[in-house]
Amino acid sequence: MRGGGMKQVFGGLDLGGTKIQAVLLDEEGNVVGQARRVTPQKGGPPAIVEELFATLQEAARPLKLELASLAGVGVGAPGAVDPAAGVLLQAGNLPGWDGPFPLAEALSKRVKVPVFLGNDVQVAVGAEARLGSGRTYRSLLGVWWGTGVGGGIILEGRRWTGRGAAGEIGHIVVRRGGARCSCGRRGCMEAYAGRAAMERRARRAVERGEKTKLFELMEAHGKDRLTSGIWLRALKQEDGLAERLIARALRMLGAGIASAVNLLDVEAVIIGGGLGTRLGERYVERISQAMHPHLFVSQRPPDVRLSGLGELSGAIGAALLAEPAEAPIASRHPTRGRTQL
Amino acid sequence: MRGGGMKQVFGGLDLGGTKIQAVLLDEEGNVVGQARRVTPQKGGPPAIVEELFATLQEAARPLKLELASLAGVGVGAPGAVDPAAGVLLQAGNLPGWDGPFPLAEALSKRVKVPVFLGNDVQVAVGAEARLGSGRTYRSLLGVWWGTGVGGGIILEGRRWTGRGAAGEIGHIVVRRGGARCSCGRRGCMEAYAGRAAMERRARRAVERGEKTKLFELMEAHGKDRLTSGIWLRALKQEDGLAERLIARALRMLGAGIASAVNLLDVEAVIIGGGLGTRLGERYVERISQAMHPHLFVSQRPPDVRLSGLGELSGAIGAALLAEPAEAPIASRHPTRGRTQL
Repeated sequence: MRGGGMKQVFGGLDLGGTKIQAVLLDEEGNVVGQARRVTPQKGGPPAIVEELFATLQEAARPLKLELASLAGVGVGAPGAVDPAAGVLLQAGNLPGWDGPFPLAEALSKRVKVPVFLGNDVQVAVGAEARLGSGRTYRSLLGVWWGTGVGGGIILEGRRWTGRGAAGEIGHIVVRRGGARCSCGRRGCMEAYAGRAAMERRARRAVERGEKTKLFELMEAHGKDRLTSGIWLRALKQEDGLAERLIARALRMLGAGIASAVNLLDVEAVIIGGGLGTRLGERYVERISQAMHPHLFVSQRPPDVRLSGLGELSGAIGAALLAEPAEAPIASRHPTRGRTQL
Repeated sequence: MRGGGMKQVFGGLDLGGTKIQAVLLDEEGNVVGQARRVTPQKGGPPAIVEELFATLQEAARPLKLELASLAGVGVGAPGAVDPAAGVLLQAGNLPGWDGPFPLAEALSKRVKVPVFLGNDVQVAVGAEARLGSGRTYRSLLGVWWGTGVGGGIILEGRRWTGRGAAGEIGHIVVRRGGARCSCGRRGCMEAYAGRAAMERRARRAVERGEKTKLFELMEAHGKDRLTSGIWLRALKQEDGLAERLIARALRMLGAGIASAVNLLDVEAVIIGGGLGTRLGERYVERISQAMHPHLFVSQRPPDVRLSGLGELSGAIGAALLAEPAEAPIASRHPTRGRTQL
């Protein structure tokens, strides 16, 4: 034991467009504290840094733990990250965020301990590999199915981050020249399977006069968009449009994930993300079936599993960033690689 | 220096459906001997083993080198390989080959030194990474454009072989539900870009009455199929059908390779294979351009380079299999991994 018999505790923060999730993780990987707050919609990066700090404090309060006594803090953020510099380069999802911001440095000044930055999906997949559904595999592909479709790659037990942006499985082209994607390109898997893309398509169908319960359910539950929960309810009510759009998403997920497996030949695929987690095991099985027609070595498919850590995977993965053992395999790019602030 | 001041020499054999290429490689990676013979079309695996032995002997003769004095021999073979067992599991391209055959063991009995087996494309890409166009990169994707479209992945300077079959980039789905592939599936990149698929499409076009010089050129040069050289000649003569089919292949290569780059974020893409090597730099540039509309991080594309070792890359890569340093990163699958016979 280090630190005079005290267990080391790591802070993890999952920064999303609508909420911030904090966890405190002990050396054995147990979640010993957690808190969730709303992402400030005004004030840009400084307001977000304050709220990250406050969420972590809230998680630590019941433990009577000073944040300065943490062994380190990790942040998983949406968008492009420079992990070496601790800079969030680009984050389309975050309110008031334009251009690069030294998030790790700014938060480190508040918490008084080193802060590490990673991509939200990459770190969530890392958490699944260490502590979740992926822990019995040495190589896996994580597919985070939500507003978009993100991904993360684990090879030989370590995150493969490439030049920083590896894992963008949502932008595998499944139909060249096909549907327009929110990234501006065409035919990406996300353009069919992402929740935002499905909602756009559902709205167009309604404009054409098609019947669906999707938007009634949305209003009845006080939402302003089709959340994962709304999709699940519509499917349970056997709404035709919802079933059709989800079936189309599953076909494209099948083709895109199988393509990635043909390339990487990993042992397992872990399905996570808001929609993946909410729809659950039955839909994981349907994704597995949709992959099958496209698998090159079809007699030896990878295991396909649901995320085991659910909503906390991102925050837990962020906490693991602060662990000395957790260094990704990455290209020796001069500005990449994990360094401490 | 080991072995009493003598440099170690490694044997490499590239086993193809029509030819066997042998090289002898010294410790510094210099090719010190080479020979090429025709793959026997009768006699199955035993005849092929004899011819592998004879080709290696032919390469060694000018050096007055006994094969038993080699430090080891590697074989790159088409199809599915079990590298640990040295077994060629499946090789559709090889005459008279059905079912698994212990190729490494059989050849080892003839050459009297350890024999290592690898997939032909994977080892060719490994050679490019060590000694060819890829030697300045730590991570790269090799795309071998020929009869089919094969691939190999180098991460942190080592081959990533997954559970043995990684790199099947030809079977990335670029158009779900699209053209029928020789693998039996639909919409694979190879179904558009593979030379065999292009020839099938050209034949159908001729049946429909379309005009092309492709088959005249084939006959004039005494070939029974559209070789890479025939495609090149037809393009030089601005044959409309050849140009259209190659343009279509390039579009699909662009989408498929960009998809792989979005997933892996490697530093470089190396283009090799019969067609890639024959068409050369100008078409490598066209592949690079075709990737661009699909790259997720488009401001930082990977370098796209032509194979530097050309026709010898497979045999050189096979020789590198016999080097103690050359161990692939692979999943810890019980039956995988490199072991000596």
